[in-house]
Amino acid sequence: MVAYRLPLMLIIIFCNFVVFGLPSAFCQSKKSISEKSQECLSCHRLFTPGIYQDWRQSRHATVTLQEALQRPAKESRFSLNVYKQGSYQFVVGCAECHTRNPQSHSDTFEHHGYDVHVVVTPADCSHCHPKEKDQFVTQNKMAHAYGNLHHNPYYQNLIGAFSGPAKSEYHEQIDNCHGCHGTKVSVSGTEEIETATDPMIVPKLKGWPNMGIGRVNPDGSIGNCSACHVRHRFSIAVARRPETCRRCHQGSKSPAWEVYSESKHGLLQDSTQNPEHLEAVPWKLGVDFSVPNCAVCHAALIVDPAGAVIAERTHGFSERLWVRLFGLIYSHVQPVKADTSIIRNKRGIPLPTTLQGEPSNRFLIPDTEQYVRKKKMKDLCQGCHSSQLVRQYFNHLNENLDTINKAVENTTEQMKKIWSAGKANDADPFDERLEALWVEQWMFLANSMRYAAAMGGMPDYILGHSRWWEFNKGFQVLKKAASQK
Amino acid sequence: MVAYRLPLMLIIIFCNFVVFGLPSAFCQSKKSISEKSQECLSCHRLFTPGIYQDWRQSRHATVTLQEALQRPAKESRFSLNVYKQGSYQFVVGCAECHTRNPQSHSDTFEHHGYDVHVVVTPADCSHCHPKEKDQFVTQNKMAHAYGNLHHNPYYQNLIGAFSGPAKSEYHEQIDNCHGCHGTKVSVSGTEEIETATDPMIVPKLKGWPNMGIGRVNPDGSIGNCSACHVRHRFSIAVARRPETCRRCHQGSKSPAWEVYSESKHGLLQDSTQNPEHLEAVPWKLGVDFSVPNCAVCHAALIVDPAGAVIAERTHGFSERLWVRLFGLIYSHVQPVKADTSIIRNKRGIPLPTTLQGEPSNRFLIPDTEQYVRKKKMKDLCQGCHSSQLVRQYFNHLNENLDTINKAVENTTEQMKKIWSAGKANDADPFDERLEALWVEQWMFLANSMRYAAAMGGMPDYILGHSRWWEFNKGFQVLKKAASQK
Amino acid sequence: MVAYRLPLMLIIIFCNFVVFGLPSAFCQSKKSISEKSQECLSCHRLFTPGIYQDWRQSRHATVTLQEALQRPAKESRFSLNVYKQGSYQFVVGCAECHTRNPQSHSDTFEHHGYDVHVVVTPADCSHCHPKEKDQFVTQNKMAHAYGNLHHNPYYQNLIGAFSGPAKSEYHEQIDNCHGCHGTKVSVSGTEEIETATDPMIVPKLKGWPNMGIGRVNPDGSIGNCSACHVRHRFSIAVARRPETCRRCHQGSKSPAWEVYSESKHGLLQDSTQNPEHLEAVPWKLGVDFSVPNCAVCHAALIVDPAGAVIAERTHGFSERLWVRLFGLIYSHVQPVKADTSIIRNKRGIPLPTTLQGEPSNRFLIPDTEQYVRKKKMKDLCQGCHSSQLVRQYFNHLNENLDTINKAVENTTEQMKKIWSAGKANDADPFDERLEALWVEQWMFLANSMRYAAAMGGMPDYILGHSRWWEFNKGFQVLKKAASQK
Repeated sequence: MVAYRLPLMLIIIFCNFVVFGLPSAFCQSKKSISEKSQECLSCHRLFTPGIYQDWRQSRHATVTLQEALQRPAKESRFSLNVYKQGSYQFVVGCAECHTRNPQSHSDTFEHHGYDVHVVVTPADCSHCHPKEKDQFVTQNKMAHAYGNLHHNPYYQNLIGAFSGPAKSEYHEQIDNCHGCHGTKVSVSGTEEIETATDPMIVPKLKGWPNMGIGRVNPDGSIGNCSACHVRHRFSIAVARRPETCRRCHQGSKSPAWEVYSESKHGLLQDSTQNPEHLEAVPWKLGVDFSVPNCAVCHAALIVDPAGAVIAERTHGFSERLWVRLFGLIYSHVQPVKADTSIIRNKRGIPLPTTLQGEPSNRFLIPDTEQYVRKKKMKDLCQGCHSSQLVRQYFNHLNENLDTINKAVENTTEQMKKIWSAGKANDADPFDERLEALWVEQWMFLANSMRYAAAMGGMPDYILGHSRWWEFNKGFQVLKKAASQK
Repeated sequence: MVAYRLPLMLIIIFCNFVVFGLPSAFCQSKKSISEKSQECLSCHRLFTPGIYQDWRQSRHATVTLQEALQRPAKESRFSLNVYKQGSYQFVVGCAECHTRNPQSHSDTFEHHGYDVHVVVTPADCSHCHPKEKDQFVTQNKMAHAYGNLHHNPYYQNLIGAFSGPAKSEYHEQIDNCHGCHGTKVSVSGTEEIETATDPMIVPKLKGWPNMGIGRVNPDGSIGNCSACHVRHRFSIAVARRPETCRRCHQGSKSPAWEVYSESKHGLLQDSTQNPEHLEAVPWKLGVDFSVPNCAVCHAALIVDPAGAVIAERTHGFSERLWVRLFGLIYSHVQPVKADTSIIRNKRGIPLPTTLQGEPSNRFLIPDTEQYVRKKKMKDLCQGCHSSQLVRQYFNHLNENLDTINKAVENTTEQMKKIWSAGKANDADPFDERLEALWVEQWMFLANSMRYAAAMGGMPDYILGHSRWWEFNKGFQVLKKAASQK
Repeated sequence: MVAYRLPLMLIIIFCNFVVFGLPSAFCQSKKSISEKSQECLSCHRLFTPGIYQDWRQSRHATVTLQEALQRPAKESRFSLNVYKQGSYQFVVGCAECHTRNPQSHSDTFEHHGYDVHVVVTPADCSHCHPKEKDQFVTQNKMAHAYGNLHHNPYYQNLIGAFSGPAKSEYHEQIDNCHGCHGTKVSVSGTEEIETATDPMIVPKLKGWPNMGIGRVNPDGSIGNCSACHVRHRFSIAVARRPETCRRCHQGSKSPAWEVYSESKHGLLQDSTQNPEHLEAVPWKLGVDFSVPNCAVCHAALIVDPAGAVIAERTHGFSERLWVRLFGLIYSHVQPVKADTSIIRNKRGIPLPTTLQGEPSNRFLIPDTEQYVRKKKMKDLCQGCHSSQLVRQYFNHLNENLDTINKAVENTTEQMKKIWSAGKANDADPFDERLEALWVEQWMFLANSMRYAAAMGGMPDYILGHSRWWEFNKGFQVLKKAASQK
């Protein structure tokens, strides 16, 4: 093996010095790349050129920690503000992330003399981005997407109904729900794999590869920064593009992408967007962008043309949200905690409302907090719209949500009659034909209408899609089934 | 209140002169901004910076009427050609639109000494764009979208069927149908609202905000220019983008967007479009654009590379259309008038055909006019396609429309048997289960196939979507229901 | 007629010399345009300016054969490597294609002294692109798309079921299936048509216009290069855009476009793509592009940043594909021949598997060839991903395909019970209500899940679309129908 590896290394050195001829761009920044990252790059620029080229164009590759620390606060893209242990004269290379905290990573393995791990986690990123990680993990429901699904017994039945014939195969695997919610990545021994050079012993990872945002990682941390900050360019422009959110926030259950794409905001973004300005920090309303997208409304630091802050950056994502549209089963006030598996309704079921729609207030944010969050969103809207327009828009949203909730209540009423009459069995409330119809009413149709009411101004999911038409059809079937002798 | 307002005004002055430091771009054009618009801007550049920045980049902000009047006719973007009352040395600022015709606007209110209105209307725009407004209001069915829906008793039932459980709430509101068709905006007294500075008394508007193109406005005018000429940049490039049309012309009822996106034309537009050339007036085929989109075929002034006119600009939108695809219930020849609520079929029902498909010829354009319109479209097509290809394409379209109309006739035949047998009640022809199926046959499926036949060359709505497959399924169900004892 | 034509020609000359004023760009290259093409252009730059302008910006218009032959092999965009009969000092103009091989074209007609044909075919293109044409015709199933559909008696029923009420009209026409599969273009006499100048006698073409990739042409050749290499710019950038593939590879039957658009790769392409780099030959991974699309994975010549070949260019499109996702009825190993109409299963039915899923191995590629193809795809993936990740991704794909095939087997089992019990008649296995449901299970749902598993990592077709949910619903109905007495 060693005899084989030696010539390979010679080939690598040959390639670096002769074929590549020490490309100047690489050489110039080399002095600020740590020695261990340089060693990584010596092979990986040849074997994974896509990763190398992506990284080379990233800020990680071009700005040292020292330089980053000297930026004015508002222009800063990270939250490290005191010197901690580490070498600040270097850029962030391979080793800075993939060899961090080796002792806490159960996926650490020996790789050419280094203790490396493949799965980089929020705990690793928090070395330089502590505030972002804290906001994400404590405030963002998405960081808890795995647990919010798996630690909720009520939803286990729903997973079963959605998986159908593939139930057993997919139940705990990377696919289906876990593509977005994230998997639990675990290590079960090691395996030898073929590589471009020589065979290699690596940890055998279960639930990998997976890009779900609520991934449970081999170091015990939760969440996945690269779900949005796509590796290895980690471009803020990409994170700010609605396409990045699209991967999960689309489709019949939560068609945020579709609604945005069809809304006036989305249509204008497609018509007017200047890609270069997606990089600006802070992000100037009217100067860097003139049309809001997901990042503008829910996450980014927004300033006015004079530099005054309109909205602070947040990785919690619900700082400007007072109501939760994605209703299970009803739209309701936002929960207090990002871990929603702790919520119980008055019947003890892990839902934020009863089947009649009565909210579990003690798990939901109080009026005062709702006011604060609504105010933050209003301030943003008023950057481009009059106070009067924003006020009426918000009023309409309320009316729409009430109407939709009431329609869901009516349809649930039919379902309850069906259960009472023994025409279906609510032991598993999701697995029978009529139950599936009921699930579609709130999961596919009512949710779509809520998103459309909030982000598009038209609860019929931009009329053409005829959500109310479909809802009405389903309602008639359930009503007939409920009333039949 | 005054005590509170005074310091606020001082803050505003302070902001303008100290924080902003009189940005040079603003100063340079200041001399040509009217005094009253300057006063608007002094606050609104701070309180609605998005609007201000948008406007600042618009032609309205950079070209005075005088300069615009001196352009050669073909390059002109407006139709004012004689000096009327007004100040021609100024650009078009806030006050030029929002204080125009105050006496005719029931939504006029006193705002810092000015009589302003929020809802700018085609009547306001027509001060500078009289020809565009005239074409739009007299020839364009979309200007009449509110009345064509509401003054047609037959369609009232259809609105009910589409609104379903939300019927009463939405019937006369901004959502559902009215998002595209437009609302009737009315004033019911005044209300005090919170603003970024101090509370303000404003007219209480019903049916607002609304961006529907057929809006009925508080000055009695109909239509909404900003549905396409999005405020406050009023960019011709945006108006020319298919995304602008998409907001309403998408979805199962009239999937023009989907068909275009999937057509060769649409695919090429995505692959080759040069955004800079979307601004050109006149629009040179082969030079400014090489792929047609909605605006090219239906609205814009198109010239050949030598400057000769291929197609005139029209805001009527049906100058090059001889047949109406969006059939209720059948595809038929275009109506004579944009107000279609006056049409009656031979049974006195406000439809352009009978249920058997017989057209109401006296309300539809004659052969001579059809020939003229078809010729105009052909001239456009022949800019890039041979006479032979265009001829056969048009022939195929005719054949496809005949086939689709015949299929609808067959399916309607089943529905009539169902009504005759008392299996459904045609008092309201849209509210029962089998009726809904019938509506879907022509409203969702046949319409989709017609658009696909016309704009995509494939009536199966680009085959993958399997419109004929779905149509066949529905037909079988209706046929079975009709024949059952 | 002649009296009429003469002044027209004078007008043309007048236009060329006076109105156009001999535009310099045109003049400069004129010396290298063949005399006959110059004659074509003298009229067509006026009468079809869109075609002329497109062509003028193409490589065909700007590079002579001589110049092209001098390029290094890897940078070459054509495969002619020896001088054949022809004039190498010219660019490729109108006449070079539209007058080639006149004797083999049944659509040849006399046009101002030249024997021209409208339908340019792979046989014509192969004068300069012989290798591309050979790969396409011998290895690419798409070149055989017409025959693979029409020479397969089993599929004739399926066409009928998909055409529904339009069956007789569309069966042999350009629309429906043939929009993508291609028509058989034939000549039936001649006809006189109106043109922008004077009437003209042209061949009467049946099945035209048509852009299907498997078109059967009037010279007897099969295939249609311009399906992807869109005329008349023939831009490699356009051919490489996923939108080009979208026209056919979308929708419920084979939603490659949808899956790609929603995948991490697709989302990143939208966020990061640099249009200028779509032109590069060879295409450098990490330099010219950082995100794969259809062309990268299935067709293009890909090199690493140092110029070493990662993947060879292929017009066969399955060189890197070992498994066929688009299952009829099951996913299976790729066929040996591009002409799939020769395949028979063990029951003699022209399907690659039995209804139970047993593959017809002698028509499918052996393990050794599967290994070679899989290796080629792996090499590409490993440009950006670790060996470990790629290995596990491929393993997951296998597991997903097995799960999906098994689910289809279960649902087919129900269908067979239904047939055995006489509840449906399998003489035509596609035309009844329950049969349609069964077809939707594998044609719409299983196929979608396979594509999503392969290209998106999520077999639920990016979860939101709930393919397994729908599959489960259909399965329950079939199961109930099968078990009912």
